[in-house]
Amino acid sequence: MSANYQFKCITCGKFFPANNAPEYVCPVCSEKQEAGKSLLGVLECLYDYEEYKLSHIKKNAGTEIIFPPVVFPPLKVGNTPLYSSEILRKKIDIKNLWLKDETVEPTGSYKDRASYLVVAMACKKGYDKITCASTGNAASSLAGICASAGIESYIFVSASAPRAKLVQLAAYGANLFPINGNYDTCFELSLQATEKFGWYNRNTAYNPWTIEGKKTAAWEIACQLNFDLPDQVFVPTGDGVIISGIYKGFFDLLQLGWIEKIPQLVAVQPEGSDAIVKALAEDEKEISKIFRDSADSVADSLVVNAPRNAEMALRSLKMSDGYGLIVSDDEIIKAIAEVSSSTGIFVEPAASTAWAGIKKARETGKISAEQTAAILLTGTGLKDIASAEKATQLPSPVEPNLEAVASCLA
Amino acid sequence: MSANYQFKCITCGKFFPANNAPEYVCPVCSEKQEAGKSLLGVLECLYDYEEYKLSHIKKNAGTEIIFPPVVFPPLKVGNTPLYSSEILRKKIDIKNLWLKDETVEPTGSYKDRASYLVVAMACKKGYDKITCASTGNAASSLAGICASAGIESYIFVSASAPRAKLVQLAAYGANLFPINGNYDTCFELSLQATEKFGWYNRNTAYNPWTIEGKKTAAWEIACQLNFDLPDQVFVPTGDGVIISGIYKGFFDLLQLGWIEKIPQLVAVQPEGSDAIVKALAEDEKEISKIFRDSADSVADSLVVNAPRNAEMALRSLKMSDGYGLIVSDDEIIKAIAEVSSSTGIFVEPAASTAWAGIKKARETGKISAEQTAAILLTGTGLKDIASAEKATQLPSPVEPNLEAVASCLA
Repeated sequence: MSANYQFKCITCGKFFPANNAPEYVCPVCSEKQEAGKSLLGVLECLYDYEEYKLSHIKKNAGTEIIFPPVVFPPLKVGNTPLYSSEILRKKIDIKNLWLKDETVEPTGSYKDRASYLVVAMACKKGYDKITCASTGNAASSLAGICASAGIESYIFVSASAPRAKLVQLAAYGANLFPINGNYDTCFELSLQATEKFGWYNRNTAYNPWTIEGKKTAAWEIACQLNFDLPDQVFVPTGDGVIISGIYKGFFDLLQLGWIEKIPQLVAVQPEGSDAIVKALAEDEKEISKIFRDSADSVADSLVVNAPRNAEMALRSLKMSDGYGLIVSDDEIIKAIAEVSSSTGIFVEPAASTAWAGIKKARETGKISAEQTAAILLTGTGLKDIASAEKATQLPSPVEPNLEAVASCLA
Repeated sequence: MSANYQFKCITCGKFFPANNAPEYVCPVCSEKQEAGKSLLGVLECLYDYEEYKLSHIKKNAGTEIIFPPVVFPPLKVGNTPLYSSEILRKKIDIKNLWLKDETVEPTGSYKDRASYLVVAMACKKGYDKITCASTGNAASSLAGICASAGIESYIFVSASAPRAKLVQLAAYGANLFPINGNYDTCFELSLQATEKFGWYNRNTAYNPWTIEGKKTAAWEIACQLNFDLPDQVFVPTGDGVIISGIYKGFFDLLQLGWIEKIPQLVAVQPEGSDAIVKALAEDEKEISKIFRDSADSVADSLVVNAPRNAEMALRSLKMSDGYGLIVSDDEIIKAIAEVSSSTGIFVEPAASTAWAGIKKARETGKISAEQTAAILLTGTGLKDIASAEKATQLPSPVEPNLEAVASCLA
């Protein structure tokens, strides 16, 4: 699956050969970078697709995703199920609906796809210490995959992250910094620490391999549907890296001539953290203006003031003829119970955001009854029991006799 | 994979043909059943192995597990990873150690293997309502798999079960009865409700298909190791159904002539819920005497006063030349962090019990450095954050500057 590649700066368009590439972002564009803003100079990995085609065939695409040469860590990441849900499909009356179930990734979220490749890259480059800033899922993902590979992780996460995510991190043996500050603060601090302590940095988008790792779900969806792609793919969006990764996966397949068209990508954001969707609506071109003051939502995984990968996310939406949608926290919470009780897939708020999004798309005519769609269920509900509790009502304790049981049924 | 079968009563040895079999336990033996005691007359499913061999080959065993003819529900259950862990292997110095990772089952535990087959059976028999009593995992498993199949679930669970397990149940849309009582109380009450309301009952061991469902991990381990089996398999044990299922899976393979010997099975129990291990040590033959007053442990999934499948579990241990081990709650908690930080697999207390067990087996010489073993990691730590928190120490919040970070590293 390994292929020759080069990087291209998404901001200025400059190419960097693999053997002389910057570790993270474009050195020229990042000169203009302001702290706490969306990233300038994110790098995109472009392969020698013509060469790859000589030795690979479409039929094997599922097991031969195009990557640089690396050795992956031991935990099994990806190859998650793609379910066709009759129950949910009927609720919104569309032709076909597929669910990409990322709740069964080894640490319980989509983020494992990025951590997997980043840890492989760290090993290749000779690092034995990796850091990242995260809203929680990327952190536990990095910590878990580092644990499996015997590598140290240094994690910057808001001290207010859901308890389950912090405890999971600690159990993985991560060196944990619960920061008195939000995700954006953690992001900046981790960049400083990277420089100061010489760690490898997994920050989303800042490290270009996060995008390459996240592209794998697009390859899987294509293969699982025998290349008969859905019309639209709904992606819960915070920093904009998953949607950029999904675009990149389909882009690869398009370059290889294995698909004819990239599905319309749909960025779904909570109304309290909607910077990318708003920037798309306003056709915002200046990255530093893509910003949300005091972002907040029940979907904690999606809460960012400055979406780090805004530029690439916006390009992905435009190039795929996609669009953005904003949903409320109430809709997200309601969607937790709808998805879980209709599919058996217990989802966290960020994941149910995708279902809230497609409902809204159907109501507003953005997708028709004749169309097909896939939604990404990006993380397990077990990570955020407090939110799931808002979506449900735990019944009162029942006395241990049949009469008491019968009265509950009445 | 479908095959002809008959049932055999484990207590009296009577055979029942498939077309005239009791729904649950042997009607003769169950006449003598006392409430709240281990079950009499549990049924074992025996296939026409000779017939099966005519049309199936060992090479395909992994995808053709022997079963009665059924249509499975949509969620993908089983086929979980079997990891070889160098880090853990070295900690106890044995030849090889494999981990069966059940944390990535759709609802996060081994119990999905039983629910999967039981729900398939319910559909075949025309039931649209299923009930069970559970310490938590079997309940969320049944509720999730019922949700995926569009079937109603009615769940009896102790009101004191970990919050995450209750919330997960509620999110799956289960009809939930949080009973003021322990698991044993829930078990009896669900039997009464089954009779009164005409539901199908999934209680572990009481419904013989729970054992058949749980056998699948043994088939997978055999196939994943190319039939070169481990010397010992360590099974966290409560009711004794998983260990009976593991035995049954290997027994099937032995009957088919695809393995030569069943590995030594090791039942690991918490010291507060050790009825099966004690009964084995004392060679207890009278089922109603296998009992523990006020069982209690941090490994809530393993807490039972009267292990329902004691008879079959004891037979499985004896027939496999296996043995029992008791571990303390402290050892179980310590094992959570050891497993999670060494493998990236975040485990609940019941699962870490298997690792606590093999450590003890090594210390006491029950397994030698020249031997190989597999341990079952039966459920995800995300279901019981409170216990994981006891295993780790969350650091204090850190101020958002490099000096504060550096002082944490010092």
